[in-house]
Amino acid sequence: MSDFFGDLKPLRFDPEGEDLGFRHYNPDEIVMGKRMEDHLRFAVAYWHSFAFEGGDPFGGRTFDRPWFGEDMDAARRKADVAFEMFDLLNVPFFCFHDADIRPEGANFSESLRNFEEIVDIFERKMETSKTRLLWGTANLFSNRRFMAGAATNPDPDVFAWSAATVKACLDATHRLKGANYVLWGGREGYETLLNTDMGREREHAGRFLCMVVDHARKIGFDGTILIEPKPQEPTKHQYDYDVATIYGFLKDFGLEKEVKLNIEQGHAILAGHSFEHELALARELGVLGSIDMNRNDYQSGWDTDQFPNNVPETALAYYEILRDGGFTTGGTNFDARLRRQSLDPEDLISSHAGAMDICARGFKAAARMLEDDALEAPRRERYAGWDTPEAQAMLLSDLDSISERVISEGIDPQPRSGRQEVLENIVNRYV
Amino acid sequence: MSDFFGDLKPLRFDPEGEDLGFRHYNPDEIVMGKRMEDHLRFAVAYWHSFAFEGGDPFGGRTFDRPWFGEDMDAARRKADVAFEMFDLLNVPFFCFHDADIRPEGANFSESLRNFEEIVDIFERKMETSKTRLLWGTANLFSNRRFMAGAATNPDPDVFAWSAATVKACLDATHRLKGANYVLWGGREGYETLLNTDMGREREHAGRFLCMVVDHARKIGFDGTILIEPKPQEPTKHQYDYDVATIYGFLKDFGLEKEVKLNIEQGHAILAGHSFEHELALARELGVLGSIDMNRNDYQSGWDTDQFPNNVPETALAYYEILRDGGFTTGGTNFDARLRRQSLDPEDLISSHAGAMDICARGFKAAARMLEDDALEAPRRERYAGWDTPEAQAMLLSDLDSISERVISEGIDPQPRSGRQEVLENIVNRYV
Amino acid sequence: MSDFFGDLKPLRFDPEGEDLGFRHYNPDEIVMGKRMEDHLRFAVAYWHSFAFEGGDPFGGRTFDRPWFGEDMDAARRKADVAFEMFDLLNVPFFCFHDADIRPEGANFSESLRNFEEIVDIFERKMETSKTRLLWGTANLFSNRRFMAGAATNPDPDVFAWSAATVKACLDATHRLKGANYVLWGGREGYETLLNTDMGREREHAGRFLCMVVDHARKIGFDGTILIEPKPQEPTKHQYDYDVATIYGFLKDFGLEKEVKLNIEQGHAILAGHSFEHELALARELGVLGSIDMNRNDYQSGWDTDQFPNNVPETALAYYEILRDGGFTTGGTNFDARLRRQSLDPEDLISSHAGAMDICARGFKAAARMLEDDALEAPRRERYAGWDTPEAQAMLLSDLDSISERVISEGIDPQPRSGRQEVLENIVNRYV
Amino acid sequence: MSDFFGDLKPLRFDPEGEDLGFRHYNPDEIVMGKRMEDHLRFAVAYWHSFAFEGGDPFGGRTFDRPWFGEDMDAARRKADVAFEMFDLLNVPFFCFHDADIRPEGANFSESLRNFEEIVDIFERKMETSKTRLLWGTANLFSNRRFMAGAATNPDPDVFAWSAATVKACLDATHRLKGANYVLWGGREGYETLLNTDMGREREHAGRFLCMVVDHARKIGFDGTILIEPKPQEPTKHQYDYDVATIYGFLKDFGLEKEVKLNIEQGHAILAGHSFEHELALARELGVLGSIDMNRNDYQSGWDTDQFPNNVPETALAYYEILRDGGFTTGGTNFDARLRRQSLDPEDLISSHAGAMDICARGFKAAARMLEDDALEAPRRERYAGWDTPEAQAMLLSDLDSISERVISEGIDPQPRSGRQEVLENIVNRYV
Ligand SMILES: [Co+2]
Ligand SMILES: [Co+2]
Ligand SMILES: [Co+2]
Ligand SMILES: [Co+2]
Ligand SMILES: [Co+2]
Ligand SMILES: [Co+2]
Ligand SMILES: [Co+2]
Ligand SMILES: [Co+2]
Repeated sequence: MSDFFGDLKPLRFDPEGEDLGFRHYNPDEIVMGKRMEDHLRFAVAYWHSFAFEGGDPFGGRTFDRPWFGEDMDAARRKADVAFEMFDLLNVPFFCFHDADIRPEGANFSESLRNFEEIVDIFERKMETSKTRLLWGTANLFSNRRFMAGAATNPDPDVFAWSAATVKACLDATHRLKGANYVLWGGREGYETLLNTDMGREREHAGRFLCMVVDHARKIGFDGTILIEPKPQEPTKHQYDYDVATIYGFLKDFGLEKEVKLNIEQGHAILAGHSFEHELALARELGVLGSIDMNRNDYQSGWDTDQFPNNVPETALAYYEILRDGGFTTGGTNFDARLRRQSLDPEDLISSHAGAMDICARGFKAAARMLEDDALEAPRRERYAGWDTPEAQAMLLSDLDSISERVISEGIDPQPRSGRQEVLENIVNRYV
Repeated sequence: MSDFFGDLKPLRFDPEGEDLGFRHYNPDEIVMGKRMEDHLRFAVAYWHSFAFEGGDPFGGRTFDRPWFGEDMDAARRKADVAFEMFDLLNVPFFCFHDADIRPEGANFSESLRNFEEIVDIFERKMETSKTRLLWGTANLFSNRRFMAGAATNPDPDVFAWSAATVKACLDATHRLKGANYVLWGGREGYETLLNTDMGREREHAGRFLCMVVDHARKIGFDGTILIEPKPQEPTKHQYDYDVATIYGFLKDFGLEKEVKLNIEQGHAILAGHSFEHELALARELGVLGSIDMNRNDYQSGWDTDQFPNNVPETALAYYEILRDGGFTTGGTNFDARLRRQSLDPEDLISSHAGAMDICARGFKAAARMLEDDALEAPRRERYAGWDTPEAQAMLLSDLDSISERVISEGIDPQPRSGRQEVLENIVNRYV
Repeated sequence: MSDFFGDLKPLRFDPEGEDLGFRHYNPDEIVMGKRMEDHLRFAVAYWHSFAFEGGDPFGGRTFDRPWFGEDMDAARRKADVAFEMFDLLNVPFFCFHDADIRPEGANFSESLRNFEEIVDIFERKMETSKTRLLWGTANLFSNRRFMAGAATNPDPDVFAWSAATVKACLDATHRLKGANYVLWGGREGYETLLNTDMGREREHAGRFLCMVVDHARKIGFDGTILIEPKPQEPTKHQYDYDVATIYGFLKDFGLEKEVKLNIEQGHAILAGHSFEHELALARELGVLGSIDMNRNDYQSGWDTDQFPNNVPETALAYYEILRDGGFTTGGTNFDARLRRQSLDPEDLISSHAGAMDICARGFKAAARMLEDDALEAPRRERYAGWDTPEAQAMLLSDLDSISERVISEGIDPQPRSGRQEVLENIVNRYV
Repeated sequence: MSDFFGDLKPLRFDPEGEDLGFRHYNPDEIVMGKRMEDHLRFAVAYWHSFAFEGGDPFGGRTFDRPWFGEDMDAARRKADVAFEMFDLLNVPFFCFHDADIRPEGANFSESLRNFEEIVDIFERKMETSKTRLLWGTANLFSNRRFMAGAATNPDPDVFAWSAATVKACLDATHRLKGANYVLWGGREGYETLLNTDMGREREHAGRFLCMVVDHARKIGFDGTILIEPKPQEPTKHQYDYDVATIYGFLKDFGLEKEVKLNIEQGHAILAGHSFEHELALARELGVLGSIDMNRNDYQSGWDTDQFPNNVPETALAYYEILRDGGFTTGGTNFDARLRRQSLDPEDLISSHAGAMDICARGFKAAARMLEDDALEAPRRERYAGWDTPEAQAMLLSDLDSISERVISEGIDPQPRSGRQEVLENIVNRYV
């Protein structure tokens, strides 16, 4: 037992409590027939919680953690503290990249050995911990070898390195019984079109993804393969721009049934969308998988990865997820990092606890809205005209016949109120 | 002959001239084996040039045109002035919506009669004018009946009205030998997700587009059907967000070979992309059709539709088009409106003349870059590693075999300079 | 009594009611020693509620109101309905521009007569209505004469017209016992720097404002003169960009004690700030006057003027106002318009009622946070180091002596946690 | 002589050359009566050129420089290469922060000794080099001690440290005969309003600046004190947001005659302005000092600090500077960093050379526009109505007398064309 968290006690549901605890998140509360823990499926992100040092583009490390260091001892200390935090938070899941959990070795093989040793440690810890793996992933963006892309690098050796890395991470995820495997293409994009063969890079990205899907099948991984959209940053343009873009890409490679999406609020915002838009679109396209529930500052043009703190926003997000039937393999990951001035161990706990409460409040509001049919009844009513046989027949007809009917029947459509403010008021009764 | 343009004379190529004329655009100059006029295929937009009254969200009409009015006489005067302007500018093409050219009638049939009468007038004028039709389109956004969408309206009667309208516009485009037909879905989107059935609306949009393609075939229209992307405005979210989004939509309805895109610089900017990105992506996806060469102010968050005025930017745009082999049915439309303070007839001529010169300068620079292999040689060299049989074999292999090779061969990729600034310098030798 | 609102009844506080009413806004509830009505001082905006026709840049009128028309009868019908709505909403204030309430005449004098006749009507209505005037203002942006600015127009005659108009509006505001007078410089800015003499225009704007302040004094108006910041739209750049910009302008003309600010959430967002930032800054600079509590869509780059609907946001706004001691002459105006699809009379009522409830919830949360010292105690503690005499002495010293001390004392400052997430959690206990 | 730059030769003006050289920048060419070198006053930024390692928020060091390291030997090697590069580029100026040029010591005194030793080295090198110091500055943002601000830190000890640091840097700048001293407040702002006492921090910032001005006078520094505006990043909000904001701040502390501004294109863009706007405004307010001529990517929401590459943009920037009479102590600094993929020594030279050429082209175009009175003649003409005694008398009058005149004279102002497109065409004849 490290003493990093001092005398902090495991957090409990205590709606009136003054200490660190959950005021709204009650894992065992039954909502829509299921425990909240099983609905929300919270996950801690290893990288932001344990590997982020507090740097930003204009400043270096601010955090002072006993596990910082580039050797295996440090990695082991980090793993100890991580599982202690999972216990304190009573969180059912975590997520990791290879690079978060092990030091880089002198070459691929050494890095792999380091990685596997820590995965062994995870495996042992998970025998006694309640915390399972929501997803694993590979960091194909931090090291300078990836500066011009991973699967889309002009150098085939980088493609090879990336493929070998994903194999290792996917194998480890499978071993740890991960529910999903995520790909985030942070360097799959370009800094300038002037040196980029976008068509060729797209082909390579497609082939790479096919290989990943094939490998998952081959090893018997029955979790979900997820892509995480983000429009830009670090690159000027990232190929996995948003939900709609990835959908077209998946269609091109015949993968729209094989691969789903891990959607992050902050990335939706950077792409010019609301979070609920991206979720709703993914649902309609059949590719809604999992979420990163970390917000972006609305006045910042870069990825701020902040913990969620706005109940009306989380309610609208969970509403779209509940309309999809709720998570299956997916869950609620906090791809959120402490502000770099939040130096204390308590900040790490408090930030997660607050986020879990915010999600719980939003989730419960969403569930009640859905159970009450509060939004769905008016929505159905608005489109009711399309439920007639005539309307359906028109959809299957042609311009000539429709045009004749418009003229012969003197069709003259009359607008009806869209009632946006009324519907917003309805939502506000629930949040 | 109206006297709107007073004693303005037809513009001519006069590189040293002080009067209104072209300093750079020489229609007959041969570039890459073709006349510039045939490369650039400039078009005047009827709506902005003749129907825009100078209003904005905080103010009404500023322009005072002798053809303003809501009757057929006004529409005829407008047509007269339009063709006079086409002659003055020596412009090979124009574009129009139904609503620009005719007054709205009391019902569909009357609007249609008005429309067809003006189309007759166009047909007669085009017998003697050199100016042809680049594309026709239907205005399915201004009238209040479209406030909740056209093909995606909750009311099937609006779908019907829209279908009948597109039939009329497509028929007219065919009659006038239009080279393309454009669909811009200004109201195909939503103001709030709360009242929107996005899945249903997407299905209706898809069926609508299929009907349009079918009708084009049926009447023997051999021009190109084009969709114009725009992310938002007037709606909060428009379904035809950007090139990548439309591509996924076309794939879903099996139309990616039938339909191409009309890409506007301003809309690319609003979607978070550079214009050249959208053009390059469309080219790689095989859907690059035509362009609206009007810029957006980089500091404004709405569609400013300004005439182009930056040669380095137009050069990069035409470079992507030339890499696609140049326009086939497409062309360079100026979907640009005068600033609302630019009240004078001369402003209308001068703005177009300046835009044509800017395009000509950019185009010639692009052609020289391509002929000199100035960017393509370094691009090929950057990806040369992929041209080996080994690299190609790897693309067809699997994660296991690649991983084995990485380990056994001790692969250790070394970064090479991306040379962005050097390439930017190269471009600047041409512009 | 018009029948526009049919059988809608005056809204009442009814926390559990299912009908249209207030669930949270109880005018008589005492918060921090004052009635909520007297704290919040809600106002209806005449322009959006009664003059907005539903148009946007791509479409015309959608609303169908019995009072639309450009004659005095229509203006009188509009006034009748307006005061009926004020009664239904039990709202203590309204706001207006000259152009909202009267038809434009053939010349200045006729417009003035029209205006004064309606002001007479208002005066009579206000004898029996509870609703008072929060502020009056002049519309110096819609008519084409203002296209290049009002006080900053290159034509001195437009300056003169604008001055005469403001005189009329300020006189009327005084007559109607308005609590404030607002200037929004929608056209005081530029479309292009190329034709603009920014220095000269700034001088004219300063002189104009001085004249307005002098006139207010002269007529004995003891309300507050307010400027409303907005960064752009309709113009590319507006001189009254944001709070900080206006402050510098006021300082230049010695008006920082004479003029305060009317701050709108949507305009704060467009300027790249949070609403609470603009409010806090205005408070620190001593120029916080009044608010327009209408939000901007976070994904739209133009002024959407939507009713507020997010309690955590309104809470942070009222918190800054309460830290300023609450409103004196200012209040909460809804410079908000219905979405153009919200066609029904009920939408007009429901939107305002929902907004008032959202504000009431936010306000009550803010008051509790302040009463509990929940944020102020940690804030004071964070800066406590500055309360020592040594720290204060240092502030009055010089670089040399400080440098000597840093070296001689070996000063080595140690960072302390900023606790952002903890503070966000505290806020979330209240909202 | 290090061999970092291999056999690269000093760059020369060679308009037709194929090698690395200047095609447009001829230091000795006389423009408007002065050598171009003396007009443009180019400076290399020490930090980006020699201290930037290629990191970004998602990746670490990509550059591999022989001078990287945290000891004094490394710092000396860096200085050697820096002055070699200044010679190769024939650049008349450079700029530095303390932290770029020396390793951080164990305490303030040791850091200071390291700094002074390198300053000694600079002094000796400058005896033989043509390159002088455009400005010095202090890095008060990278070290974790500054995470919550420098002059605005809640901890007075950080204020003290910052004051001592600025003293050292200002003294060194004075010793090296620097033409200016710059303050950029990268951490003077906030991450969250919740923990910030904005009023107190503003007071401290004002006092700090007063001390800096006093110290400059005391030591006889006759260069200019400059503040560099930036709206955000690294913080959510920076107090030195833009030109207008800083102007108000300077007025409050009576420093508007003592302090000028160093304006960066990229920061103007991030603040929602064009670069030429910020320059023109600073000129009108009398605070235009110097420029950082590095652009921001228009599609990125963070500070990209790229070398300029668009001639029309640089032309409009230098036009505003020439309207101010040109630089006095100021100059053209490239606060620009190589893209992190631009690994080669040649990239470092080529990027600067290209930037100098782009600036030279823009500058020469601007000078011709000004000499031809091409924009100023129409601008004067547009405002000519204000030059009459009547108009000037009106400016000094009051609302009552103006109103009387509007009514009695029946004033009815008529709009005149703003001719924006015509003026844009004029600019395009020059660029
Ligand atoms: Co993120
Ligand atoms: Co994420
Ligand atoms: Co447009
Ligand atoms: Co267009
Ligand atoms: Co507004
Ligand atoms: Co407002
Ligand atoms: Co910068
Ligand atoms: Co800078």
